[in-house]
Amino acid sequence: MVSKVPDTETTTGITPPRHRFASRMRRTGKSFIREILKVTEDPGVISFAGGLPNPAFFDVQGISEAASEVLAEDGRSALQYSTTEGYLPLRTFIAGRYKTRLGLTVSPDEILITNGSQQCLDLLGKVFLDAGDHVAIERPGYLGAIQAFSLYEPVFDPVPLEPDGPEATHLDSVLSGSPVRIFYGVPNSQNPSGITWSGEKRRDIARILADKGTVFVEDDAYGEIRFSGDTLPSMRQFIPDQTIITGSFSKILSPGMRLGWICAPGDIMEKVVIAKQASDLHSNFLSQQIASRYLAQNDLDSHIRKIRNGYLRQCSLMAGLIRESFPDGVSFTEPQGGMFIWLTLPEGCSSMEVFDLALRKKVAVLPGLPFYVDGGGTDTLRLNFSNSTEEKIIAGVERLADVVRTVGKNS
Amino acid sequence: MVSKVPDTETTTGITPPRHRFASRMRRTGKSFIREILKVTEDPGVISFAGGLPNPAFFDVQGISEAASEVLAEDGRSALQYSTTEGYLPLRTFIAGRYKTRLGLTVSPDEILITNGSQQCLDLLGKVFLDAGDHVAIERPGYLGAIQAFSLYEPVFDPVPLEPDGPEATHLDSVLSGSPVRIFYGVPNSQNPSGITWSGEKRRDIARILADKGTVFVEDDAYGEIRFSGDTLPSMRQFIPDQTIITGSFSKILSPGMRLGWICAPGDIMEKVVIAKQASDLHSNFLSQQIASRYLAQNDLDSHIRKIRNGYLRQCSLMAGLIRESFPDGVSFTEPQGGMFIWLTLPEGCSSMEVFDLALRKKVAVLPGLPFYVDGGGTDTLRLNFSNSTEEKIIAGVERLADVVRTVGKNS
Repeated sequence: MVSKVPDTETTTGITPPRHRFASRMRRTGKSFIREILKVTEDPGVISFAGGLPNPAFFDVQGISEAASEVLAEDGRSALQYSTTEGYLPLRTFIAGRYKTRLGLTVSPDEILITNGSQQCLDLLGKVFLDAGDHVAIERPGYLGAIQAFSLYEPVFDPVPLEPDGPEATHLDSVLSGSPVRIFYGVPNSQNPSGITWSGEKRRDIARILADKGTVFVEDDAYGEIRFSGDTLPSMRQFIPDQTIITGSFSKILSPGMRLGWICAPGDIMEKVVIAKQASDLHSNFLSQQIASRYLAQNDLDSHIRKIRNGYLRQCSLMAGLIRESFPDGVSFTEPQGGMFIWLTLPEGCSSMEVFDLALRKKVAVLPGLPFYVDGGGTDTLRLNFSNSTEEKIIAGVERLADVVRTVGKNS
Repeated sequence: MVSKVPDTETTTGITPPRHRFASRMRRTGKSFIREILKVTEDPGVISFAGGLPNPAFFDVQGISEAASEVLAEDGRSALQYSTTEGYLPLRTFIAGRYKTRLGLTVSPDEILITNGSQQCLDLLGKVFLDAGDHVAIERPGYLGAIQAFSLYEPVFDPVPLEPDGPEATHLDSVLSGSPVRIFYGVPNSQNPSGITWSGEKRRDIARILADKGTVFVEDDAYGEIRFSGDTLPSMRQFIPDQTIITGSFSKILSPGMRLGWICAPGDIMEKVVIAKQASDLHSNFLSQQIASRYLAQNDLDSHIRKIRNGYLRQCSLMAGLIRESFPDGVSFTEPQGGMFIWLTLPEGCSSMEVFDLALRKKVAVLPGLPFYVDGGGTDTLRLNFSNSTEEKIIAGVERLADVVRTVGKNS
């Protein structure tokens, strides 16, 4: 039996509300991912379904020391209200790192600290999107962005992903149609596909965006955990006035501290500050100070090298096992960074059937359906490699290979 | 010269944006309060303009110990992603406190942890308000709520505040007009007026809301810091299915940790969870664990007693000095809690003129204008007493008395 994707409130089994809610609430149900994660909370399940970083790489000791020092030295300030834009030394650190890592000249005034990079997406939806506005997004596209933007009731224009990035002619034709407010994409190790846009593709896309004057939202959650290949330029290098970068400490320090940021040109930042202030005044100031102090007295590059090496090992192990043990007709991305392998099943093989049978065998995977704003992707799966031990990767992929073979035979 | 309130983008001196923003962004400018606070950042200025709790009452030592223990005992969990609803032990604590403090039976499932109570207002705007929907709000009303809701483009229906709470017949007639989605109010020590709704008024208002089926948003940021008079019932006691309470640790523990919560019946909570997840996945998990541990091993009641006693002293000092030194024709609330005294100037005396002249004398006050959604309030001022030492209260009120006398003579 094929499970149904609970993507609207009518399918979640909730009785009709007595209260009258905003129409935007009809457009989204509970996250498919979160619902799946609940099913897979059973500790006996090997889960490749989630998107958690590996907690073995959290520097608990270093963060604990930074926390003690911040509270000892000026605790009253760290516990008080602060500015909407965020802690200046932290914003200065982020701006400086854009210089050293990507050669970008960014002013701390162009940085605002958010509650993780998910909040960037909500704030940008708030700033840019009226109901009915068009948003271009990669196909498949990041589910968190689809959820955040959906509540502003836009029309999504999916742009197919090729192995080297979005299909340029398709983007051009989309942008030549109805006015598109923003193009949202993840050029480095995209979630879910694992694809990294090539340098040449970046230039092509930038040229199209410059021509149309469309704002690009560059979600760079994974740029720092690129474990093979050269560092590629940010779109800000080509179209600085039209590029907003969203960044995150979730993959390099700690997701629980909810620290992300928006990097945007001044005229856009002006609006983002207003939206942030109305949304929650400012981000957690204690955590901002802890992170800032941690970054000032620890070697972030060496910390990130550990994460990259670990993820490269986990990714290579999973990819190698899939190559050896999965039936013919299965294809998958070999990502150069990030946390996911994206898998396409043989023709006629349904990812929801694989999901159902795998869960019975105590392995959780994420069907690709919710990443497609226009339907489709029924033969795709996303596998997370960052949050499993090598033993679990070995055991999980073995069980999954059997499941895919079984489902393939029955289809 | 009278300063202008910069309440729209046309008055902030920004050149017209090159990018096209959502229409909601035209409805709000930068916060008047934040702009004023920038002017008053000069350490030589005695500021009664802000709304900061007294940092002398932050238990830095206790929070530091809790932080060390959380990170030492299970740091990897505290630094990892967590659930949208929030840390269950913290939600259980909050639910339990509703029982002991107000006699309310609340399930932890009815509590969701937010980034300070400002985020409650944003989430509730998102869940309830389509553009053009009506929101009833006290007159004067809390500026943070006006800002948060404004971005959902509602029509505000102001309900005049009397000394014992909102004018019931006015509310009745507002709710009998266009359908009102929510009535937002602050029954305990309202910001800005300092007014506390009487027990009788609460029952009257509840009866009207029950009759019309309107949802009440009870902002209870100040309920715990009520320093005189009995504890009064929450509206949830009268209309449990229609009452949403927003709460905050900002005034009792630390605003910098950005921990608030929404307490709502299940059918509403279902929608709030969806909105929260799309907004930022979840609140800072490290801070949630620190707060939870702090609350488990410290006596919150004794901590709150210290705050109440301190604020009562500061409030009484300021009120006494105003009574002694201000000219005839000035009236003001004597609040039973909270952080503000609300002052009405003599007829014809402009609060913007008082603001301008006071700032030249190095005292900052907050003119009441931005608290009025329909204009008016030009003769009102909000004075914060919680964040000034006794010396500053004495010196500041003395200078302010001179200013009011001068402006009164010239008007």
